[in-house]
Amino acid sequence: MDAFPIPAESFILGFIGAGKMAESIVKGVAKSGVLPPDRICTAVHSNLKRRDAFESIGVKVLSDNNAVVEYSDVVVFSVKPQVVKDVAMQIRPLLSRKKLLVSVAAGVKLKDLQEWTGHSRFIRVMPNTPSAVGEAATVMSLGGTATEEDGELIGKLFGSVGKIWRADEKLFDAITGLSGSGPAYIFLAIEALADGGVAAGLPRELALGLASQTVLGAASMVTKSGKHPGQLKDDVASPGGTTIAGIHELEKSGFRGILMNAVVAAAKRSRELS
Amino acid sequence: MDAFPIPAESFILGFIGAGKMAESIVKGVAKSGVLPPDRICTAVHSNLKRRDAFESIGVKVLSDNNAVVEYSDVVVFSVKPQVVKDVAMQIRPLLSRKKLLVSVAAGVKLKDLQEWTGHSRFIRVMPNTPSAVGEAATVMSLGGTATEEDGELIGKLFGSVGKIWRADEKLFDAITGLSGSGPAYIFLAIEALADGGVAAGLPRELALGLASQTVLGAASMVTKSGKHPGQLKDDVASPGGTTIAGIHELEKSGFRGILMNAVVAAAKRSRELS
Repeated sequence: MDAFPIPAESFILGFIGAGKMAESIVKGVAKSGVLPPDRICTAVHSNLKRRDAFESIGVKVLSDNNAVVEYSDVVVFSVKPQVVKDVAMQIRPLLSRKKLLVSVAAGVKLKDLQEWTGHSRFIRVMPNTPSAVGEAATVMSLGGTATEEDGELIGKLFGSVGKIWRADEKLFDAITGLSGSGPAYIFLAIEALADGGVAAGLPRELALGLASQTVLGAASMVTKSGKHPGQLKDDVASPGGTTIAGIHELEKSGFRGILMNAVVAAAKRSRELS
Repeated sequence: MDAFPIPAESFILGFIGAGKMAESIVKGVAKSGVLPPDRICTAVHSNLKRRDAFESIGVKVLSDNNAVVEYSDVVVFSVKPQVVKDVAMQIRPLLSRKKLLVSVAAGVKLKDLQEWTGHSRFIRVMPNTPSAVGEAATVMSLGGTATEEDGELIGKLFGSVGKIWRADEKLFDAITGLSGSGPAYIFLAIEALADGGVAAGLPRELALGLASQTVLGAASMVTKSGKHPGQLKDDVASPGGTTIAGIHELEKSGFRGILMNAVVAAAKRSRELS
């Protein structure tokens, strides 16, 4: 196959689907300086609010998806999973091997994406919702003819809204159970820690502020220190102190096993759905 | 009482005790630009490594604690709780009403601090270990004659290594159970989420990376969005999807109650120790 390298300095990035996910990616990309917003485009049909959201960032808003495909070197499918097939069939006649396609649709396989579009230069990406605050955990998998350079380009784009890893597509259900659904487990944990603080006598607002900041701080220690969380736990548990008293309570009730169950159950559900 | 306001533009900050806690505060303060390091001092007796740690930041290292007290306008007790009394008695003769004293010693009450030093211009501060990465959750309480301006000064200093709240000292045991010991609960949770990912088929390194980043991202969403964690949970749980399957597993096993128990148990232990 001939190579059609995408010029990193001048390529145009287009989004099919102008929803929240596209918006949070565009915001992160623009903010990071990886790509100026005037090299990004999308299409909005009638929703004026969505048009404003993108135009206020400096993104070009075109009239329809066909215009986005024609204008762009890299085309991101950021529509709901149920709509991907229709969109793929619709733009199929416009695709050339020069275009790199990307899908962020949850649960939609590269095999199907490639069949629907008749195009194998495809990358599947799975971000999670903290992309909205620049702290996503994203995984990507390269399809049939996507090149190493294509992977680096997309890695840089999604790296601007958080961290990104590469993995084999067969791991995507497990990843969904961990990073895809994981934010919800932590929302529950923060609420429960705050409730514990209130049970111990704290005013609600202080308890919620301390709980959120404590979770953020602990996770920052893990990501920044490069130490194993088990080591960090050991470091803060003084003999006979308050921390080991709290840990004892968690271990007695099987806290760890419960979190493992949640990841495994969500991964199983992902397999059932795909 | 006469007022001796501390000049925010030129005061000298001294640390008694040149350990890890003092170092992480000094680093955060210097990095934030709140105070240049040449207006910070401490004393190191013989440990050359500790001397290097502070001198490399640009902090003045003096010969002994007495020199620190004489040279400084604000003196921070950053020694282990068991040593506070000795240190307080030792420097007592050098204290004047112009000095503001601060203690970060866990579990040591303002009443005792004031008695040992014969000094009531005192502020008690409780940071937590993520101060090392600039994401502490800190609470402070003002002693007898500490002024509103003293509170603002110390709020700014500790605000440079994370978030800070003010609270009545009687809440400090509950705060210890939540933000003091809380990082350890989250280290456990991150390890367990990674184990869940491994159980679902992920390689260990990817699972640990995704788990840490997912916890960081979820907590960032809570602190930055200002939305209630319960609302954020609702937002990400699609009907019949993977996330609600994971949540169901957590709720079945009493995940929330277990976290509440941990906070309450650690708060109780703090009361027993103080």
